[in-house]
Amino acid sequence: MTAEPLSGFSIGVDLGGTNLRVAAYTQHDGLLETIHLPTRLSDGRDAVVDDLCGGIRQLHDKYIAQFPLVGIGIGTPGPIELPAGRLHNPPNLPGWDGFRLKDEIERKLGMPVVLESDANAAALAEWALGRGRSLGVDSLCMLTLGTGVGNGIILHGKVWQGVTGMGGEAGHATIYPDGPACGCGSNGCLEMYASATALVRIANQLATSGEAPGLARPDAWTARDLAIAAEEGNADARGIYEQAGRALGIGIAALVNTLNLPLYVIGGGVAAAWDILAPELFRELRHRSYVYRLTEPGAPASGSIPGGGTQVLPAELGSESGILGACLLPFPVSALASGEVTTA
Amino acid sequence: MTAEPLSGFSIGVDLGGTNLRVAAYTQHDGLLETIHLPTRLSDGRDAVVDDLCGGIRQLHDKYIAQFPLVGIGIGTPGPIELPAGRLHNPPNLPGWDGFRLKDEIERKLGMPVVLESDANAAALAEWALGRGRSLGVDSLCMLTLGTGVGNGIILHGKVWQGVTGMGGEAGHATIYPDGPACGCGSNGCLEMYASATALVRIANQLATSGEAPGLARPDAWTARDLAIAAEEGNADARGIYEQAGRALGIGIAALVNTLNLPLYVIGGGVAAAWDILAPELFRELRHRSYVYRLTEPGAPASGSIPGGGTQVLPAELGSESGILGACLLPFPVSALASGEVTTA
Repeated sequence: MTAEPLSGFSIGVDLGGTNLRVAAYTQHDGLLETIHLPTRLSDGRDAVVDDLCGGIRQLHDKYIAQFPLVGIGIGTPGPIELPAGRLHNPPNLPGWDGFRLKDEIERKLGMPVVLESDANAAALAEWALGRGRSLGVDSLCMLTLGTGVGNGIILHGKVWQGVTGMGGEAGHATIYPDGPACGCGSNGCLEMYASATALVRIANQLATSGEAPGLARPDAWTARDLAIAAEEGNADARGIYEQAGRALGIGIAALVNTLNLPLYVIGGGVAAAWDILAPELFRELRHRSYVYRLTEPGAPASGSIPGGGTQVLPAELGSESGILGACLLPFPVSALASGEVTTA
Repeated sequence: MTAEPLSGFSIGVDLGGTNLRVAAYTQHDGLLETIHLPTRLSDGRDAVVDDLCGGIRQLHDKYIAQFPLVGIGIGTPGPIELPAGRLHNPPNLPGWDGFRLKDEIERKLGMPVVLESDANAAALAEWALGRGRSLGVDSLCMLTLGTGVGNGIILHGKVWQGVTGMGGEAGHATIYPDGPACGCGSNGCLEMYASATALVRIANQLATSGEAPGLARPDAWTARDLAIAAEEGNADARGIYEQAGRALGIGIAALVNTLNLPLYVIGGGVAAAWDILAPELFRELRHRSYVYRLTEPGAPASGSIPGGGTQVLPAELGSESGILGACLLPFPVSALASGEVTTA
C-alpha cells in the first residue's frame, strides 16, 4: 500500500448545481489553492464551462512552472455517460440533457480531462485520503447524504464506473416499494428517506398534518435544525432521523450481501447526526444481512478483513471530499494507494 | 476476447445438498465425463468428503495420462468464507458449521483445490460459456431461482468474491421490508418471492386459505406445475409468477443502479417460465431504474454497450452451469475469455 507520491500537480473541478470549485493539488502538499465561483446556471451552460475552463487555466498558468501537470479531473453531477462524457437529464444541471460536457471542456481547454460523477470522485477521496486509508482497505462503498443520496463504489482502488459510467446509484435502490415518488421516476428510493431533502420534507409533512406536535414550524426546518432538536430530546425530530437510519440499514444490508466490501462510509451533512442514525441503522443491518453478522467486528469470519471486520462508519473528509476526489482522478491507482498522500 | 484454449484438463465438483457431481473437462472437448453420486449427508461430512475425493481421484487417474492437469475446482453451497474455505451454518449442509472444507479436501487429496460458492461457479460458467459469451460482455450478474435464490457476480471476467468470499448474496436483498421471515433471519428477501420454494409456499398458502380457487390441492404443487397451470390460463398460478417477476424487477433495478453491468442473467428452474415472469419484471425494472431506462436496448446511452444495451435474459446453460463453472474455476481469466471454449 505504499508508493512514492508523484511529484506533479493536478487540477480538480467540483462542479455543483450552486457552487463551482477549482483547485490545484499535489500529493506532497495537498490542496495548494482553491478558487470558489458560483455556478452561473441562469447564464447558460456555455457560461459555466467558460468559468470552469478559466479557473483551470488560471491555476495551470500559476503552477506549471513549479510542477509537471499530472492531469485535470472533473467531478460533475450525474447521470453522466462514460466514456462519452455526455449528461443525461441531470437533475442538478437543468437544461443540460445530452450535453457532451467532456468534449466541450476539452475543446475549449485544448487539453484532455478525466470526468467522473461527483459521488464517485468523493468516494475516491474517502478511499485514498479518508476512512479507506485509515483502515488500509482496498475497496469501499460511500453514500453521501445531501440534497440527494450520492453513491460511489471503489473496488481495488478504482472507481467502479459500470459499463456506461452510471454505476454507484444505490441512492435510488428501492427501500419501500410503495413509498413516496422520487424525482428519478421510482417510488420509495433510499434518497426519499435519508437525504437532507427527505428529512425536511418528512418534517414539514408531519408538522403540517399535526402528527408531530414537536415540529410546529412547517417549512422552517433544515436537516441540521432537526438534528439539533433530536439531540436536545425532541422525539419527533429523533423519529425522523431514526427512520432515515432504518432506511440506510436496509439499503446497506443489500449492499453488504451483494458486494461484501470491507467498508461502507456515510458522508454528507446528514451523517453529522451519526449517533442518532446509528442505532436503527445497525439494528436493520444485523437483521437483514447474515453476511454482516458473520463479518462484523468480532464475528466468526471477521478476522482476515483489514480493519478487523466489515465497517460501517461516518466519512472522515467532510465537504472537501468532492474537490479532493476531483484532484485525485488523474492520478494512477498505484500512486493513490500510497501512505504519503496528504489532505491539507 | 480470443485466446488459445489451454490444452490441459480440469476436474470440477458440484457439491449439492442432494447430489454430488464430479466431472473432467477440457476447453477443447468440454465435459469428458461426469460422475453422479448422492450426497450422503446422513452418513456425516467425512463420508461426503470421501466420496468427493474418491470421484476426483478416479477422474484424475483416468485422464492424467492424456492431458496435463490445470487444476481442481469445487462449487459448494454457502456461506463459505474465503480464502479460508470455511463453511458458516450452510442451510443446505446442515451440521457443517465451521467446517474447513477446503483444508479437509486438500488434506485428503494431497493436492490444492479452488473453492467457490456454487452460485458464483454457475455465474462463471454462464459468463464464459453461456449468455456472457454470446453477447461478448466482460461482466454479468446471475440470479439462480431454485431452492433459494443464488447470486454470482462476474466483473471483468473474474468472480467478485468480496472480502470474505461472501459477495453475491443478492437473493437476500430486502424487497418488501415487512415481508415473510426468511431462513437467513431477515424478512422479505428476494428469495421469499422468486425461488421455487417460495412459489410453492405461496401457492399452498393461497390454496389453504381459500384465496385461490384455481389452486385447490394444497401441498401438491411444484413450481413446474404452477408454470404449466399459468401457461394454461390459471389466473391464480399466473398471479404467483407475476409476483415473482415484480420482486425480481425490484431487485434487479437495485443491482442495475448499483453496478451498471451489461448483463443480468436469470437461471434455475423458475426461469423456464420466462414469458410469464418477464412482463412484470421489466415493468418494475423500467419504473425503478433510470440507469436501465437510459441504457436498455435502443435507449440514449445504450449504443456503446456490448450486446447493444443493458440486457436482462434467461440463462443459456441450464442445470449444467454448476458443474461447468466448477470445472472452469482453475482456469486463468485469460484462457476463459476465449472464443474457443466449448460446453459439450
